[in-house]
Amino acid sequence: MTIHFKRRYAEAMTSPMPSAQLVADLVDANRILAHQGIVDAFGHVSARHDARADRFLMARNLAPGLVTAADLLEYEVATGEAERRDPPRLYLERWIHSEIYKARPDVMAVVHNHSPAVLPFAIARGARLQPVCHMSGFLGSGTPLFEIRDHAGDASDLLIRNRPLGTALAQCLGAARVVLMRGHGCTVVAESVRVAVYRAIYTEVNARLQLQASMLGEVQPLTPGEADATQLTNEGQVERPWNLWRERARAAT
Amino acid sequence: MTIHFKRRYAEAMTSPMPSAQLVADLVDANRILAHQGIVDAFGHVSARHDARADRFLMARNLAPGLVTAADLLEYEVATGEAERRDPPRLYLERWIHSEIYKARPDVMAVVHNHSPAVLPFAIARGARLQPVCHMSGFLGSGTPLFEIRDHAGDASDLLIRNRPLGTALAQCLGAARVVLMRGHGCTVVAESVRVAVYRAIYTEVNARLQLQASMLGEVQPLTPGEADATQLTNEGQVERPWNLWRERARAAT
Amino acid sequence: MTIHFKRRYAEAMTSPMPSAQLVADLVDANRILAHQGIVDAFGHVSARHDARADRFLMARNLAPGLVTAADLLEYEVATGEAERRDPPRLYLERWIHSEIYKARPDVMAVVHNHSPAVLPFAIARGARLQPVCHMSGFLGSGTPLFEIRDHAGDASDLLIRNRPLGTALAQCLGAARVVLMRGHGCTVVAESVRVAVYRAIYTEVNARLQLQASMLGEVQPLTPGEADATQLTNEGQVERPWNLWRERARAAT
Amino acid sequence: MTIHFKRRYAEAMTSPMPSAQLVADLVDANRILAHQGIVDAFGHVSARHDARADRFLMARNLAPGLVTAADLLEYEVATGEAERRDPPRLYLERWIHSEIYKARPDVMAVVHNHSPAVLPFAIARGARLQPVCHMSGFLGSGTPLFEIRDHAGDASDLLIRNRPLGTALAQCLGAARVVLMRGHGCTVVAESVRVAVYRAIYTEVNARLQLQASMLGEVQPLTPGEADATQLTNEGQVERPWNLWRERARAAT
Repeated sequence: MTIHFKRRYAEAMTSPMPSAQLVADLVDANRILAHQGIVDAFGHVSARHDARADRFLMARNLAPGLVTAADLLEYEVATGEAERRDPPRLYLERWIHSEIYKARPDVMAVVHNHSPAVLPFAIARGARLQPVCHMSGFLGSGTPLFEIRDHAGDASDLLIRNRPLGTALAQCLGAARVVLMRGHGCTVVAESVRVAVYRAIYTEVNARLQLQASMLGEVQPLTPGEADATQLTNEGQVERPWNLWRERARAAT
Repeated sequence: MTIHFKRRYAEAMTSPMPSAQLVADLVDANRILAHQGIVDAFGHVSARHDARADRFLMARNLAPGLVTAADLLEYEVATGEAERRDPPRLYLERWIHSEIYKARPDVMAVVHNHSPAVLPFAIARGARLQPVCHMSGFLGSGTPLFEIRDHAGDASDLLIRNRPLGTALAQCLGAARVVLMRGHGCTVVAESVRVAVYRAIYTEVNARLQLQASMLGEVQPLTPGEADATQLTNEGQVERPWNLWRERARAAT
Repeated sequence: MTIHFKRRYAEAMTSPMPSAQLVADLVDANRILAHQGIVDAFGHVSARHDARADRFLMARNLAPGLVTAADLLEYEVATGEAERRDPPRLYLERWIHSEIYKARPDVMAVVHNHSPAVLPFAIARGARLQPVCHMSGFLGSGTPLFEIRDHAGDASDLLIRNRPLGTALAQCLGAARVVLMRGHGCTVVAESVRVAVYRAIYTEVNARLQLQASMLGEVQPLTPGEADATQLTNEGQVERPWNLWRERARAAT
Repeated sequence: MTIHFKRRYAEAMTSPMPSAQLVADLVDANRILAHQGIVDAFGHVSARHDARADRFLMARNLAPGLVTAADLLEYEVATGEAERRDPPRLYLERWIHSEIYKARPDVMAVVHNHSPAVLPFAIARGARLQPVCHMSGFLGSGTPLFEIRDHAGDASDLLIRNRPLGTALAQCLGAARVVLMRGHGCTVVAESVRVAVYRAIYTEVNARLQLQASMLGEVQPLTPGEADATQLTNEGQVERPWNLWRERARAAT
């Protein structure tokens, strides 16, 4: 199957080619995020090209649950545009990805989604998503919130539909791993596709836990020291959930 | 399959025939709404006839998840009755559809449902469903609430079971895209079947988000300008979720 | 399949035989309630024998989702015991059924369950389950609550494990259609298996709606007149959901 | 199948062998807990060796939903280490199991998980999980909460990653059947694998019920006498849910 993927994918790619592993992981990431309910028909996941840091890979405008290797395109970090002439329809918010890759050389993968339990934290005034469980220490001391009204006025369509908005979002993200977007969703970054998927899924899990805990009493977040320690430990085990999620997502299609 | 659909469907239709695309979309709409949990055994979706504006298409009295093209009938906008003599059992609330098509020439599709997260907003006194996320800008400045007691007294069965109640509902809807019905559900309209399905699904998503956000703090709705802008943007992308939902619904049956 | 069912079933039955339709409906009821999440491994559904009113049919001690016609037994209304000598293990709470059939000649089917959204109303002091939606008018002016401590003291296992407790439960039910049981679940009755299944499912739906609505504001229940009118209308349409649920439950096994 | 299991399993086992039944139950327990959503990719279940009480069986480091008999290893109660030389990667928290087996000779099975509805009770300050339903009388007079900060300081990774932390957890558990772990999850013990699975699943069910009931009013827990009586009754019926869960879990894979 890998060979078949490579052949079809090659038509859309230029040399040097990204590794077959990266392509396979990115396809699986699309399927896993859809199967786990982190994305519905919307949302997207990208990976920085592993043979040239000024490019990244992402699907054409398509529901993540339907993405195959043949749907992946190369994009330029500099411009956020496909490197191919006459590309198919692209995601409207590709500058989320390009501007974060530009601002954060450490980032190798980006997930943007409308994660259902996370969104309430991006809707309720003053709500703050914090790590409440050892699986989500990567949330650190809490997630910044991007208010697009500060950049695009109060009649925008909330989308990161151009490069300056992508720059503003990347600035709001700063050194964090997750940024909430008011009335819209969130964006998650990581040093690999697998860790980005892990973080996107456990950001959702954490939001669900925090909302329910807040109905029972005062929420106790992890301390900064606990957040750091749990992040290190758990992300060293990312193969365990990845293998399960991949099997489940493949079985479902 | 389209040809097979047309042949069976033709038995229940008169000339001019609706387009095969419209018939296919209406069948898919029934299946998608059921598969996405927007309708259970109850609820219905209709489409205005695309070759004659004084007719609309809707299934006979049947759970939407079981509807095929052979179950579709033509109804008259003027009366809300099937044009066919000796029709099978019809939906009790067909005047929801006929009176909205009469009052709103722009409307080409109508969904009526008991959407589970929307209903609490039609039960709690003073609750107000508002767009809280960029996917549901079509909710505009909030949804009107139809109180049937104002029209049928306080011992009705809550159904829109005759033409005058349909007229009253259509008046309450006014120029909006969604109307809540107290203790009953909601009705959603659009300029196409695909957009109506999109709106019905994201009305449910929005209700879920708003309820959860309200437990975390004060809910920040979209501004009217944001609602307009997001509605325009997102409904231009309706093919993306439609294709996913259709594939999922077909795979499930 | 019906013939096969009858042959295996006959081994456990005496003459006059219940109708094949009743047997088929009771098997389907078990499967539907399990598939819809109204029962898990526990809970049971029975039907009064349609050829002799002093008997009822119910499975042996088995998870409802696994019940086939071969698992059905005849029980005596008078004693709550199986009419067969050396019966297999029986449900511990069979007197729920026998005592209600004794007290309520109008009742032809009984469902007992631990319906997940209903139970909170049987746990929170002072909570009251009321019809909030037109699909659940059968809840009338609200559901009585059975407090077993009033009959078995404060160290019982909460089960209706003998005839006197069954009698007390039937008295608490009175003329109602649903009785809540504190810390335990609920019992639902109807004039047919299909209506009993309908009521059990929509009691759960109503509980979910009422809980969520209560978080948004003051809950507006149906008026007594609305409850009566909606009950009449909707239960005349019970074939529609039954056919859907049956198809879904059969497809799942 | 059992024979096949035994042969592959034998490679990792020493004499005396555990019973084939125990091995089969432990594999099923892994699959059931995953299928019922009690564990995701994390969490683990063990069984004390039924031919030598100083050993226990548990999988290598693997998502429970993927565990087969070939993945099971023998561990020493004394040390918490695999008895095999050069074992594959082990669960980081195996001392949860070893130290409980050491402190509690009555315990024959241990489940550790991050059960989604239980965790909020381990996050909200002052929340207390209590039995609110007759299915969960085993929760007794409520569950103790393990605060790892009291033992490992406020910058730990929250894991029971060594023997002393296992000892501290076992002390906190005391004579109870379930111990909550702040910001982490819970651990459930029982006198058999089947009862441990039952308790883990109904701890989750009870947590869901208690959270929802707390939104409707003051929660009424079982009395201590009711907790004892229901525990005895229900755990005598554990075959009923076990058979259902096993069938469902096997059908899903």
